Amino acid sequence: MKLVTFEMGRGPEVGVVENDRIICVGRAFPDQASTMIDLIRNWEALRPQIEALVASSHESVGLAEAHLLAPIPRPGKIMAIGLNYKDHIAESGLATPEHQLWFSKASTSAHPPYDPIALPKASPNTVDYEAELVAVIGKAGKHIPESDAETYVFGYCCGNDVSVREWQKMTPQWTLGKSFDTHAPFGPYIVTSDEVGDPHQLAFRCLVNGEVRQSSNTRHLLFNVFSQVAHLTKVMTLEPGDLIFTGTSGGVGAAMKPPSFLAERDVVRVEFEKLGHIEAAFAPE
Amino acid sequence: MKLVTFEMGRGPEVGVVENDRIICVGRAFPDQASTMIDLIRNWEALRPQIEALVASSHESVGLAEAHLLAPIPRPGKIMAIGLNYKDHIAESGLATPEHQLWFSKASTSAHPPYDPIALPKASPNTVDYEAELVAVIGKAGKHIPESDAETYVFGYCCGNDVSVREWQKMTPQWTLGKSFDTHAPFGPYIVTSDEVGDPHQLAFRCLVNGEVRQSSNTRHLLFNVFSQVAHLTKVMTLEPGDLIFTGTSGGVGAAMKPPSFLAERDVVRVEFEKLGHIEAAFAPE
Repeated sequence: MKLVTFEMGRGPEVGVVENDRIICVGRAFPDQASTMIDLIRNWEALRPQIEALVASSHESVGLAEAHLLAPIPRPGKIMAIGLNYKDHIAESGLATPEHQLWFSKASTSAHPPYDPIALPKASPNTVDYEAELVAVIGKAGKHIPESDAETYVFGYCCGNDVSVREWQKMTPQWTLGKSFDTHAPFGPYIVTSDEVGDPHQLAFRCLVNGEVRQSSNTRHLLFNVFSQVAHLTKVMTLEPGDLIFTGTSGGVGAAMKPPSFLAERDVVRVEFEKLGHIEAAFAPE
Repeated sequence: MKLVTFEMGRGPEVGVVENDRIICVGRAFPDQASTMIDLIRNWEALRPQIEALVASSHESVGLAEAHLLAPIPRPGKIMAIGLNYKDHIAESGLATPEHQLWFSKASTSAHPPYDPIALPKASPNTVDYEAELVAVIGKAGKHIPESDAETYVFGYCCGNDVSVREWQKMTPQWTLGKSFDTHAPFGPYIVTSDEVGDPHQLAFRCLVNGEVRQSSNTRHLLFNVFSQVAHLTKVMTLEPGDLIFTGTSGGVGAAMKPPSFLAERDVVRVEFEKLGHIEAAFAPE
């Protein structure tokens, strides 16, 4: 199933995408599915009723008419791994990390799939894209073994780990350069794990103004999604709706010769096999 | 005023501490103050009614009988600055940062003021304390000028930026080493800004088993609280209930000769002038 958070004059709502319609699941189950995080929490109990709702063509709105929001407008955590594809490590001129290298993006950087993305006032000239598979956590867990991790992942999205290279390198810690408002666009929907199947066999691309800049496949992940969940949960409890940005492949603007950063009106599209695409223009803050 | 989140058989509630009692503000205003973040959002409108409630000795519980929770059990963001006191920079053997050096602690690391703190399974032998002034954001803001920042700070708490040095240094990014569950204890209450006055004149200490390890004053902050708010909001919107850990002074265990890390049953107390204290024993996860 494909789940969206959308807006159509009533504030944020949750729905299921079926062809060109959004079935209004949140309206049918206001106590259990008024937000995506609530829906994820109640998923196991609610799923049969939602499937019945979809089959019966319950109240729906046109997908083209709705404003899609970030599937989870304010995640509890956005964890992101760095240097996790060989070709990106090579182009960055860095050594392959011995350990998983984690940073975070502020929860306030979560952003809708098709809305303009900011070239920030504080630093508009070194903004870069990073196409990434995003995993959405479905159940709370700590010390999850890699062999069980699959059952903790609710679904997957396309993501862009937008990065302000000047601020990323201003201090040894990447946090601020990765945390500007609007710089974690993801979506357009969450595709549930059962529909995705193996998340390590997904072709993906990033295009800037139609030109292919990144083209890879999640089979090239150095630390795969499930080992990421296992590693993170040695440290922290992952909770429903938490996001994992799983790393980007080669082809980022900073590594081009000469470096090429995003400018006003540039349009960046991230597309993943089975997950649709997100696409947005860059505009001054 | 001193605000707490507490538990007394009804789930988390919000209250005002008055002498040895907690006035049950959340019970009086369930729609506006059922959580601390709600209370902060509604503070300006609600404050006169809360003052009347306190004056009239409304329904209260004994402070000693209540279980104090983290004043904000799950903050939207926990931002933390590194290397922000000269003596801590000197003992770390590092250069004074030219720019503010920020990292984050996971929202799931927020922890009550008096509950046991974990020596994590994954790394129990390099756990360290860092006494810090914690600022609590009161109003949403972006691009806040330093001269206005004071009006965006709702109040202050004692905090301990508990750090797992092994994991902090395992990769170049500190995020995981700073984000273990239970490793952001703060409280015991939020003291509102008006009651604190100048946040840059607060003596503080950290004691381990009664031995003074850190003893400083917030007047020694290199980047003060208001310049921190100004800098962060060049990047991200700060929101009600977001926390800022403002840096630690010299005296951490990692810098002792030889290094001295926390062990089972060690009790760490962080106390700040005007803000009370937090105190907890360390125990294996």
